[in-house]
Amino acid sequence: MGCVTLMHGCVIITMDGEQRVFKEGGIVIEKDQIKAIGHSQQILSDFSHVADQLIDLNGHILLPGLINTHVHSSQQLARGIADDVDLITWLHHRIWPYESNMTEQDSYLSTLLCGIELIHSGVTCFAEAGGQHVSGMATAVQLLGLRACLAQSTMDSGHGLPSSWSALTTHDCIQSQKDNYHKYNNTAQGRIRIWFGIRQIINSTHHLLLQTRDAAAQLKTGIHMHVAEIPYENQLVADVHKVNHGTVTYLDKIEFLQNNLLAAHSVWVDDNEISLLSKAGVKVSHCPAAAMRMLGFAPVKEMLEAGICVSLGTDGAPSNNRMSIVDEMYLASLINKGREVYANGTTDPTALSAETILRMVTVNGAKSVLWDDELGSLEVGKKADIVVVNPSSWSMVPVHDCISNIVYCMRTENVVSVMCNGLWIMKNKKIINVDEEEVILKAKQASSELLKRAGIKLPTRMNVI
Amino acid sequence: MGCVTLMHGCVIITMDGEQRVFKEGGIVIEKDQIKAIGHSQQILSDFSHVADQLIDLNGHILLPGLINTHVHSSQQLARGIADDVDLITWLHHRIWPYESNMTEQDSYLSTLLCGIELIHSGVTCFAEAGGQHVSGMATAVQLLGLRACLAQSTMDSGHGLPSSWSALTTHDCIQSQKDNYHKYNNTAQGRIRIWFGIRQIINSTHHLLLQTRDAAAQLKTGIHMHVAEIPYENQLVADVHKVNHGTVTYLDKIEFLQNNLLAAHSVWVDDNEISLLSKAGVKVSHCPAAAMRMLGFAPVKEMLEAGICVSLGTDGAPSNNRMSIVDEMYLASLINKGREVYANGTTDPTALSAETILRMVTVNGAKSVLWDDELGSLEVGKKADIVVVNPSSWSMVPVHDCISNIVYCMRTENVVSVMCNGLWIMKNKKIINVDEEEVILKAKQASSELLKRAGIKLPTRMNVI
Repeated sequence: MGCVTLMHGCVIITMDGEQRVFKEGGIVIEKDQIKAIGHSQQILSDFSHVADQLIDLNGHILLPGLINTHVHSSQQLARGIADDVDLITWLHHRIWPYESNMTEQDSYLSTLLCGIELIHSGVTCFAEAGGQHVSGMATAVQLLGLRACLAQSTMDSGHGLPSSWSALTTHDCIQSQKDNYHKYNNTAQGRIRIWFGIRQIINSTHHLLLQTRDAAAQLKTGIHMHVAEIPYENQLVADVHKVNHGTVTYLDKIEFLQNNLLAAHSVWVDDNEISLLSKAGVKVSHCPAAAMRMLGFAPVKEMLEAGICVSLGTDGAPSNNRMSIVDEMYLASLINKGREVYANGTTDPTALSAETILRMVTVNGAKSVLWDDELGSLEVGKKADIVVVNPSSWSMVPVHDCISNIVYCMRTENVVSVMCNGLWIMKNKKIINVDEEEVILKAKQASSELLKRAGIKLPTRMNVI
Repeated sequence: MGCVTLMHGCVIITMDGEQRVFKEGGIVIEKDQIKAIGHSQQILSDFSHVADQLIDLNGHILLPGLINTHVHSSQQLARGIADDVDLITWLHHRIWPYESNMTEQDSYLSTLLCGIELIHSGVTCFAEAGGQHVSGMATAVQLLGLRACLAQSTMDSGHGLPSSWSALTTHDCIQSQKDNYHKYNNTAQGRIRIWFGIRQIINSTHHLLLQTRDAAAQLKTGIHMHVAEIPYENQLVADVHKVNHGTVTYLDKIEFLQNNLLAAHSVWVDDNEISLLSKAGVKVSHCPAAAMRMLGFAPVKEMLEAGICVSLGTDGAPSNNRMSIVDEMYLASLINKGREVYANGTTDPTALSAETILRMVTVNGAKSVLWDDELGSLEVGKKADIVVVNPSSWSMVPVHDCISNIVYCMRTENVVSVMCNGLWIMKNKKIINVDEEEVILKAKQASSELLKRAGIKLPTRMNVI
């Protein structure tokens, strides 16, 4: 492949500041960047002579690479190990034993398998919520050709932790993250960034929070944290820290709310806390599937109205179980239209329009990962992170309203090719940089062994003979 | 293809009374029926000598054909014409103009396109909610090889109806349905049954309801009706008919609630009405996507606990917009776990287990369409309606819990082959009886022309240039 690629004859949904959609568009990619974008004919006439490769996209749709802002890539091997169980069983008897028994190789394979699913669903960049082996994740992301903000999961207190974790001091948690930063930040042709991670307030001392805040500020990077996930969390925080509501109120009190904080879920926030998040420029990752299944319905409409940058995330496989941002777009629309019934007595089918949802997975996603100078829209000078969608199959036709069909009809079937950093990482549904079948085979084996090692036994459903 | 097919080496989820799941199963199909089912080795040893065809399924999963109990097949061409608009715009300015301008050919093409999507999502039987041209639907169903309970949409009163509809008398409505029954019931090798349809109580006189009830009883067939969809409906019914709650209470009063009634949605029902539906043996079709988007959250858990047979439906393309029962399984789980937050303060991840959801799309589906003597489970003597699932792709692995992964991870990508009435209607993702691309092309053209004819213009989203 040459270093200048020209694609033409496609609908281009730019997501730029003017919300331009080219009905018959063309785009020029030079190395890892977008060099030109415009009407197909103009682009062909201006750039054909310099292009090493011309691709006629024949009515396909181009979107900016989708950004998934809350992913547990290390949990991919745990898909299906914690379905239909209560939260305590989920955490203490399934997820913690699983995660605390992971090897670096498990993390690597899990991230590879997760990455394959992310790419198939049009994701070019994800924010890792925090797993155990950043080294394993980084190797997988490097290989897949994806872009990611990786983080380690840190906990320095709390009940019921596996012994290998409860031995860690605050210093250990901070130091290992600084080490990760120096080792992996800005590696993989600049596709990997290292963030700080806080698992949840219940497992964090005051010291861990403040040192994380200061270390992230010093290194000019972000913090990824689960915030206000369940009512119990807020109640505990209110009791222990003597604040009048919950986690967000407390985080404000200790000046932890900053514009480099990506707060996942943020379901149980009151009006005052919405205002606090907004004023501080905190970003929120809304994960509709996990919300419905486990946490509750976040006031997403209210947060957007308050000016908060809300993006979308899939969460991890044991919380979802699909890891498709394409499905999350659909879910975000449905649940936020439906949730209005509790506020106003009827649903509001006009809430969270298709355009709004599309912004959440593109421009808002880019802002959430602090990378909007280079990502989130198809504009000259930005990184060439691009999704090619085939709108002509049974799952999307007829297309009377292209934006709407992308959000409400598109399935992963329609995502045909994905480019990240100027290179194809999936072409005609084939993952380019790894052998999909080999990864699946290895991941199956590793996950069985991991479950055995962790002593996780699932009850049998139905009458298996 | 010979008339005896033996498939072996597969996981078989029978959904029979004993909930048997064969880890390594085999099944024998003779003509349109299941002749034998059991362990792979036993089946091979007993039936290999009589089989015309042996298929090694190599670890794939067999399920009973899925049953989608609420489909507007005529609305497939209207996908995307009514997104993000309020209910009045949806009905009066988009759906009614669309439907009232449909030709028989439009209905035919719409049902073909819809059928293709249904088959890709593992559906072998669907219950039509009621469209305009049963003749067009029947021709399409006959051709596709699907099984269906078809119904005409009837309305004999109400405001704002298109003129071609408001001219219809009660007698017209009943007579045309009787004509359809005599012409199409039990056609297409027995795959088509004709039901009666009531669009909604707001557009039905007392006479239409009673005559429909009596005609359906006389012909021993079912009635498909939208019931208690929105609070306004209940309020209107309570005001006009002087009952203390809504539609269900009124339908009970006029003895319309019978065990041949398939009540779609049934969102706004109180405890007493749940009890009325249960006592009468009324079946309920729960449509999670449409519920979230437009109607509100039905008390599904309560209905199931009251012994009501609740099945799943996709509704029509302008209400959903995906027409995938595979997605509805996922949605039914998520929303009904989430909905508990409003009753109990937290979600209940144990609500509506994977087994329950799987029953809803199989055995409950069969009961809902009054066809459980022949459909809904893989058992000797039942019709050979079968779905073949490939669980080894990126969207479903690892499979620690097969039942759970089918409900929570499976996507249409995983549905590889579908058999209805003993014949393959999709094999290795290829629709057998129609040319998919040709249908798509014709459907696109017909839908554009239909929108023009109906005077439906959609506002442009974003800045299209």
